[in-house]
Amino acid sequence: MLADAIAEAFPVVRVDSLVLEAARLMVEHRLPGLVVTDVEGSPCSVLPAADVVRCLVPSYVHEAPVLAAVLSETMADRVVDKVGSKTVGELLPARPPELAVVDHDDNLVEVAAVMARLGCPLAAVLRDGRMVGVITASRLLERVLAS
Amino acid sequence: MLADAIAEAFPVVRVDSLVLEAARLMVEHRLPGLVVTDVEGSPCSVLPAADVVRCLVPSYVHEAPVLAAVLSETMADRVVDKVGSKTVGELLPARPPELAVVDHDDNLVEVAAVMARLGCPLAAVLRDGRMVGVITASRLLERVLAS
Repeated sequence: MLADAIAEAFPVVRVDSLVLEAARLMVEHRLPGLVVTDVEGSPCSVLPAADVVRCLVPSYVHEAPVLAAVLSETMADRVVDKVGSKTVGELLPARPPELAVVDHDDNLVEVAAVMARLGCPLAAVLRDGRMVGVITASRLLERVLAS
Repeated sequence: MLADAIAEAFPVVRVDSLVLEAARLMVEHRLPGLVVTDVEGSPCSVLPAADVVRCLVPSYVHEAPVLAAVLSETMADRVVDKVGSKTVGELLPARPPELAVVDHDDNLVEVAAVMARLGCPLAAVLRDGRMVGVITASRLLERVLAS
């Protein structure tokens, strides 16, 4: 069994996509993170949903969490202010989580080894430098348990 | 809006659950991780799916990844050997990922602040010390975008 046999479509955003678009994709697909590609479409990182949540938290709450309990502002007030024109690239941490990347003809042990080494719950599958899909850790486990 | 208004059911394993059971739950619900509770049912950590994948990779592949491409062994051969009687607690790293935990009457800014601080894509919601559900980052974003 090779990687491209179990790769699946998966929501992707580019580094120049709006954070709001990323948030909507996370909500629509109920995902804890998205694959991020560069402007040419090459997968380069993962945007964790927790990082989108982080940018909606007022900075004075980060500094004094107790204020969260007493503030009158809602996070909804901040969506447009905070992420209205912000891009995914601006939100990624200085050292963004490394995305596992495998070749379409890698076997499943190779895929597992890369995921395990990076502690990454998904791997982008490339063929001729283009992403043809994603293998999630749960998809990989599914194949292993089924075989 | 308070935490318990948006908390949802979420698959949970105990530290003494079998890894195989955890893997099956990840597959069934297509999840990148599960909430782990102690034997009394108090949420204490998160088991990432990548950690389950890791224990299926032969140790000589961890040491020399190039061997993954040429080995004849499949991961399926290893499932029973490697995780047959292993528990979730045995699999968790020495410093397991910290699970965000919130009170049922915390507001959504408080929930977001805890998730953001821990970089955790989900928060367990407690009422009187018992877990009543989980709020995922995508669920939180859904409420924020909808309001």
